[in-house]
This record gives sequence, C-alpha cells and structure tokens, in this order.
Amino acid sequence: MSILVVGSVAFDSLETPSGKRERVLGGAATHFALAASFFTKVRVVGVVGEDFLPEHETVLTSKGVDTTGIEHVAGNSFHWTGSYLKELSEAETLATDLNVFADFSPKIPEGYLDSEYLFLANIDPVLQLRVRQAMPNAKLVAGDTMNYWIAAHRENLEKVMKELDVLVINGKEVLMLSDETNWVRGAKKVLAMGPKSLVVKYAEHGVAGFFSDAMLAKMDMCEDAERTIFRAPATPVEDVVDPTGAGDSFAGGFYGYIASQGVENGGKLTPEIYRTAMFYGSVMGSLAVEAFGTERLQRTTREEIDARFAQLKELSHL
Amino acid sequence: MSILVVGSVAFDSLETPSGKRERVLGGAATHFALAASFFTKVRVVGVVGEDFLPEHETVLTSKGVDTTGIEHVAGNSFHWTGSYLKELSEAETLATDLNVFADFSPKIPEGYLDSEYLFLANIDPVLQLRVRQAMPNAKLVAGDTMNYWIAAHRENLEKVMKELDVLVINGKEVLMLSDETNWVRGAKKVLAMGPKSLVVKYAEHGVAGFFSDAMLAKMDMCEDAERTIFRAPATPVEDVVDPTGAGDSFAGGFYGYIASQGVENGGKLTPEIYRTAMFYGSVMGSLAVEAFGTERLQRTTREEIDARFAQLKELSHL
Repeated sequence: MSILVVGSVAFDSLETPSGKRERVLGGAATHFALAASFFTKVRVVGVVGEDFLPEHETVLTSKGVDTTGIEHVAGNSFHWTGSYLKELSEAETLATDLNVFADFSPKIPEGYLDSEYLFLANIDPVLQLRVRQAMPNAKLVAGDTMNYWIAAHRENLEKVMKELDVLVINGKEVLMLSDETNWVRGAKKVLAMGPKSLVVKYAEHGVAGFFSDAMLAKMDMCEDAERTIFRAPATPVEDVVDPTGAGDSFAGGFYGYIASQGVENGGKLTPEIYRTAMFYGSVMGSLAVEAFGTERLQRTTREEIDARFAQLKELSHL
Repeated sequence: MSILVVGSVAFDSLETPSGKRERVLGGAATHFALAASFFTKVRVVGVVGEDFLPEHETVLTSKGVDTTGIEHVAGNSFHWTGSYLKELSEAETLATDLNVFADFSPKIPEGYLDSEYLFLANIDPVLQLRVRQAMPNAKLVAGDTMNYWIAAHRENLEKVMKELDVLVINGKEVLMLSDETNWVRGAKKVLAMGPKSLVVKYAEHGVAGFFSDAMLAKMDMCEDAERTIFRAPATPVEDVVDPTGAGDSFAGGFYGYIASQGVENGGKLTPEIYRTAMFYGSVMGSLAVEAFGTERLQRTTREEIDARFAQLKELSHL
C-alpha cells in the first residue's frame, strides 16, 4: 500500500568529525522516502527550487519513489547548514535558508488521494493539519515535529496531535512538551494530548513505543492492556559519520514496514507489526548515519536491511 | 552456590525530590547483598562502627545473608551525604565521612573461602586485588568501580580489570576510561584493558553486555562469535524516589541469578544465563529506586521479581 509523505526536500551543508560536505541532498521527506522505499510505494509532496536537478530527483525515482508531488518553483531549495563538531548527538544550526520552502503550500496530486498511509514530516503544524484534512480516507496517520513548533506553535501542534495515530518524537521533546523529567510520565502526558501512540527516539539507546487505550483497541489488543510500552534497541554503530536524517530514516523504515504489512494483512495493524516496524526503523536509522546525507541508504539493499534486523533481534532477545 | 561480596556497608543521608532521609542503611555491599539474596546465598566482607546496630544487621540476616564477615570496630560507620535535588540522574555529594572505612582492610573468614562467586564492589582497587588474590578458587570474578578510581588510581584499577570476568560499569565511566565518545568503541577499548566482559549501565535506558573472545570461549559460544553485544531494557519506573544503590542492586540481581544457575548447571555459565541475569539485574535496579535506601528491596518478593521479569521480557521481545 502507498504512503504519502509531506515534508522538506532540501540541501544540507554539514560538518562532522568525519568531514565536511556542501549542499548534499537532504530534507525530512527525502530521508523518510528513501528509507520507506525499501518496503513499500512512497509518494512525496514537497517543494524545490531551480537548484534541484534531475540527478537529485533520480536519487528518489531510482528507488521507485513517486516524485510527481514535488513542486518545482523559481528560486532556490531549502538549504540547512549545520555542525556536529561540538556534539555528535546534537546538531548546531549555523544557517537556515528557507528559500522556496518559506511559502510552501502542499498541493496533493489527484493520483495521491488514495494513499492509505499518511506521514506528516516535521513542517508547520498548520500545514500538517491542512494535509491531514485533505486526506480524509487515510487509514493511518503518523507525524513528526520538533522543539521549534513545541515552543512557539503549541496550540497548532496540539490540533495536529489529536489527528495522529502515531507521533514520532525524540526523548528531549517529550520532556519539553510534557514539562516532566521522567520519561514514562512524560510520554503518558503527551499521549493524553491526543496521539493514539508515540514512538520516542533515544538515539543510541533505541526507541520506546507507548500505546493509548484507543491504539490498543485499534490494534485489537484490548485483552493485552498491560502492554502499553515496547522498547526496541538501536543497532550498535561504531562510526557515526553524519547523524542528519537518522530520525527521518527511522520513521521511513518504521512506517514503510507497517504499510508493507498492510497489504498482506488486509490492512489490519497488529501489535506484532507495530513492534517489528520499530526494529526496522531502528535498522534504517543505523544505516543512515554511516555516511553523509543519503549516501548510505542509496547503496543499501533489502538483504542488508534484513541481516541487520536479525542482528538486532539477536542482541535483544533472550 | 555462594557469592562473596566485599564492599561498603554504610549510612546514607539523602535528599531527593521525594523527600529527605537521615542515616538510612546503605553502602554498595548492602544493596548488592540484599538484591542477590533473592537468588542465592550471599556472604559479606565489610567494616562497620558502633553505630551499626543489631537492627541494621537484621536487615541482611533476615534475608539469609551471612554477615559474619562484617567486622565491627570502634568509631562510626562510613556515612555519605548526597542530594538529587538538582539532577535525579546524578547524585551531588555533600559530604563523605569515611570514618572506620578509611582503614578498611578486608578480612575473609575461613568459612568464606569456598565461595565460587566473588564480587568486588566499588572500593580501592588495591583492596579489590588483594581480595581477589585471597580467593584463588573463585570461578567467576566480577567487580565495579567509579570515576574517582578511574581518574586518580588508574594503574591499580588496570591490574584489577585484568582479573575480572565481568566489569560492571556505567556508560559515562566507559567513555571516561576509554577516552572515546562512541559507546561501542568505548566499550571495546575497555574490554581490551582486560575484563572478559562488560555490563554497561545506562540508567533508564537499560544495560548493554559486551563479550570478549575469552568470555565467549568461557561460555562455549565460540560458534556464536557475532553475538558480542547484548542489550536489556530497564523496567519503566514512573516514580523514582531514591536512585542510590540502583547500580549495586542491579549487580546483585545480575550476579545472584548467575550464581543461582551455577547450581543447576553444574557451574557452567552459558550465554543464556548471562543474558537472563541482565534482565534480573534490571528488575532489581528498578525496584530499588522506588523507595528510600533499602526499603523497597526489603519488602519485595521473588513472585514480584518474577512478574517484573516477565513484564520486561514482554516489553522487549517481538
């Protein structure tokens, strides 16, 4: 089944302890789509400028990603400049040139309207809500956000959260959003804001899934009401070259796996699929950081992904 | 089979967001012994002063812990004063009154010499080494340390590390000891310093086990040479009342389970026992933090421990 992802398609200029890169292909929707493409059909809604060349589009289309929803307009694409020299675990933003992204108004092609899975990558919550409302038939809606929207656009973000089956968010953002210091209490408070489930990312410490009663009901696991938390480890990575896009790649692997299983299961999301998806997301995140930009995901294979999945299961199961 | 633990038996005065306690029973050997007592026989070598009353000794003996190795001398017991008001995840030491612990010279009772399992809790590495040498027949030796010994007594610590089958250590200490920023590279570097395996503690993010070739050989799993890392999650705890002793309680549960299985398996440590022990350690650590001092471990039961073990398995296994 198809995922529609809406989000940024951008260029990143990066500095990490492993080196420096100028204007490599990036953006949340790019990383997400590439990661998800190993599992299912992906359609992208975004906007780029004249600097986005056919060679950039080919990175996505060569993996079968449908890019007809990427709007080309006059001007330059979104360009982010960041450094990981001080702290590999947290980017320091040196420049954010929104360019054509400043006026982004998502346009959903007619042919995308039957997408069953919707992923609202990290953009203005006003736009996230608009896209969600334009896709009333999406049967599963997931989304991401960031500290900027939590701090300055809280009210709009809360409207989006009520629409989400899955909120993908990092550990610090959970504490910020909930005003808590404990990770479990924090997650429960965020759940109470509306999303039916959370996937909380803790970088090298993996991810945690938190399920509301509504999500358990949606997954037919009411009898399993104790299982409100699930943890998946991260694949151990010795050489983190570039952490940019790790979270988006996680989300792509996670959601891509869920969508792929929708086909085989007549569309029913089960707890087992959800948990397995967390492992696949973890695998895609670990691959993404092993090279700059999209390099590593471009050259991986489903065989490598499945081998890493097996390794992740071995290192966490008794 | 019996564990001999050598370490501090002390009083702690604590302040946490949940409240304040004066002179509650504490010390690494105390927390370790209590946690391990739910699994196996434990013998303690330590030193206390006149303020250590029969009621304190009863906390241990009522759980079957053998305290004949606790030496009583004139003066006061080790007394630590700490605060978790700034940061629940890291204690701020307000006062360290070593008292009788300053001249601690471990004396091993004759009846303890047949202990198969030795645990060197966090004390001066010179003493750790002396105890290890006094117990040549111990078939498994594990130990703990802390930042103080890493920074100021590195050479002595390195001698102890070469004697250890298991070094229990926290994530920050691994990075400090290895001078690395990556958790996997750091652990591998520490392994290369001598301990046959590491159990690295990451507080609410659980623990990671790292196995050297020597440990894999000891566990008859040479054919499984890829399985050099294992991760166990932490039990989610919503109300952390007092983190003091969490690591020692982890170690007690971990090592206690290993020793208990030694009986049933004719003394052979297997990878499955090691991994399961990491889960049991995690359970004991999560219990310990739910009340001040030793309160929570005093009132838990093996049934509660096993229920939490089952929960931990459920929340981490596909």
